[in-house]
Amino acid sequence: MSEYASHDKNGVSVGVVEKKFFTFAEPPNEMVLESGARLGPITIAYETLGELNADKSNAILILHALSGDSHVAGYYNEGDEKPGWWDIMVGPGKGIDTNKYFVICSNILGSCMGTTGPSSIYPKTCKPYGFDFPMVTIGDMVAAQKELIDHLGINKILSVIGGSIGGMQVLEWFVKYPEMIASAIPLASSARHSALAIAFNEVARQSIMADPNWNNGDYYSGSKPDLGLAVARMIGHITYLSDEAMRQKFGRRLQDKKDFSFNFDADFQVESYLRYQGTKFVDRFDANSFLFITKAADYFDLGSSKGSRLAIESRENVDTKFLVVSFTSDWLYPTYQSKGLVKAMKKNSFDVSFCEIEADWGHDAFLLPNNRLSSLIKGFLDRIYYERAN
Amino acid sequence: MSEYASHDKNGVSVGVVEKKFFTFAEPPNEMVLESGARLGPITIAYETLGELNADKSNAILILHALSGDSHVAGYYNEGDEKPGWWDIMVGPGKGIDTNKYFVICSNILGSCMGTTGPSSIYPKTCKPYGFDFPMVTIGDMVAAQKELIDHLGINKILSVIGGSIGGMQVLEWFVKYPEMIASAIPLASSARHSALAIAFNEVARQSIMADPNWNNGDYYSGSKPDLGLAVARMIGHITYLSDEAMRQKFGRRLQDKKDFSFNFDADFQVESYLRYQGTKFVDRFDANSFLFITKAADYFDLGSSKGSRLAIESRENVDTKFLVVSFTSDWLYPTYQSKGLVKAMKKNSFDVSFCEIEADWGHDAFLLPNNRLSSLIKGFLDRIYYERAN
Repeated sequence: MSEYASHDKNGVSVGVVEKKFFTFAEPPNEMVLESGARLGPITIAYETLGELNADKSNAILILHALSGDSHVAGYYNEGDEKPGWWDIMVGPGKGIDTNKYFVICSNILGSCMGTTGPSSIYPKTCKPYGFDFPMVTIGDMVAAQKELIDHLGINKILSVIGGSIGGMQVLEWFVKYPEMIASAIPLASSARHSALAIAFNEVARQSIMADPNWNNGDYYSGSKPDLGLAVARMIGHITYLSDEAMRQKFGRRLQDKKDFSFNFDADFQVESYLRYQGTKFVDRFDANSFLFITKAADYFDLGSSKGSRLAIESRENVDTKFLVVSFTSDWLYPTYQSKGLVKAMKKNSFDVSFCEIEADWGHDAFLLPNNRLSSLIKGFLDRIYYERAN
Repeated sequence: MSEYASHDKNGVSVGVVEKKFFTFAEPPNEMVLESGARLGPITIAYETLGELNADKSNAILILHALSGDSHVAGYYNEGDEKPGWWDIMVGPGKGIDTNKYFVICSNILGSCMGTTGPSSIYPKTCKPYGFDFPMVTIGDMVAAQKELIDHLGINKILSVIGGSIGGMQVLEWFVKYPEMIASAIPLASSARHSALAIAFNEVARQSIMADPNWNNGDYYSGSKPDLGLAVARMIGHITYLSDEAMRQKFGRRLQDKKDFSFNFDADFQVESYLRYQGTKFVDRFDANSFLFITKAADYFDLGSSKGSRLAIESRENVDTKFLVVSFTSDWLYPTYQSKGLVKAMKKNSFDVSFCEIEADWGHDAFLLPNNRLSSLIKGFLDRIYYERAN
């Protein structure tokens, strides 16, 4: 099954990572969303690495965060400049070893990277959905992922792994389909958004909706709300870093000049960095997707009884094992939130390991090279895999 | 001198607080700014409370932050709904006792509350300055305040007091005119902005400048950049609160409904609060002033050799006494920054007291009722006043 293999980081061709598509929920059998609305057809973009073994016991599902996609690792073509977004963790011999495991990563519902979202064509109008797209929840994203896993013929996933909003999906997988997952690794995540996290998301959304080009979500045939989306992304970037990370990375260093401009140019490197991140983002991401996904994250609440979500509670015949990881300088999903989750799990006699990793890089730490994190995940997966094989 | 007295909080008329104006730097004698540009004429809006004593030794200068004004305490008219912005601290028998001290508060240069700023009329064009307004620094603001103090005939100020950007002005007063101030109280402030603080300001500025109504600062005859300014204010409001403050104040409580809207209404109270704060702000504040003042704050660096600013260092014949105050939950100007300042002062044998006050309310804590802060300031001022009288 060479189609599942990838190039390694040295450019040695060991196969090709290919974006694949799976479509379901064709009318009249649309998916019923948590809001009660119906959505269909739904196409899921996904990629796989490694090989599925004969008894289909080595599958790992990776769940991405806000702006991620299915391209988790490897290169599409030899000579590509950048590998997938978690290439430091996923690949031959890495923390999630594709020589050993079959890795699946799918683009989330509501996104704009191949899976159905507000920029997809609405069959009813033959135009992009825009704000005709229904509100989707973390639960809806996971229900769609479950359709893909069924389609791949996998009954039990060795591990579901994700950071940030990906971690919310990990927790939702346990709530919805505990019998289907042998283990779960939520990284830099939370059982629910704090008021602070909601506040940042809301201001970012307001920035997009304040851009006249946003036009109530109907902009696909004209100018896009690039300025509003860029500011939204800048707000996000501040929350992904930490005070300490910014001090180390930028401090008060000036950009390309020896003194202040005494005008509104980007004097400081941190200003220049943010402007660059904002501008770069609008080329690859859809403003409406930003709105829908951040709202889904704000709605997520593991302790709520709304929709299909249930509090973490004892379940019969469920043996899912957890590894919960937080990072010291993450102030978007601070350690105390992970600890609260772990406490609730332990109270219900779950098999849960917890680790707070020392890192200066804020919320983004889970995406950055970190030997501690790699070996932690590797060791945990090896234990789960070994226990299930014996 | 009943003109200096005020109404007290119970509405008992003890005089009138009146906004006054002082104009200087008439052409051709414009003020030379730190950037080298010239500005004039300059009008300073100011208010006073209490009575100046015979030897003019009881004057206290209060310096406001970003969006403040000269109306520090009391009421303009009986029946006014709201008193000045620091009425909890300033008044008869309060932390800064107007029965004892003569309190002066002036609107800062670059603002829009009566002092010359980008919304003032540019004599050369007979239209508002807009972006013809020159960049002003914290040093320029303080130089303008000094002209007012000279005008009032005061040679030595008992204390200069301010929080946040007002605290920067306090520090700048010491750098520029140490012989004129007997004491100084910087609250919730910093010797320089961190990369994080610059980042928040820059994103707020980008939000304003992304609003097409901003029109390169030339909007006074048409629609204002209200949407951009509202988002900028929302960003600010997040930084003024703390994670804990937001959890206590809002948590995940919903606004006026029992369940999620599944649209982009303000579901959560925190969303509704931010929208309200943003909308309210645009009625009273000028977007260009927001740009100029935040940039001035970013430029401020007590340790820099630029312009007239000098590092805190030993000065002969200077006996200014300091009270530095930080707040535990302030993450915009965290305690470690105040501690760094105090350390540098102590190293240079300054007379400095430092206090970190336990407060859940983030950066805004200095504006909120706090008995500890009131009695700390009262005690410090009494000591300075007594020492100088004897």
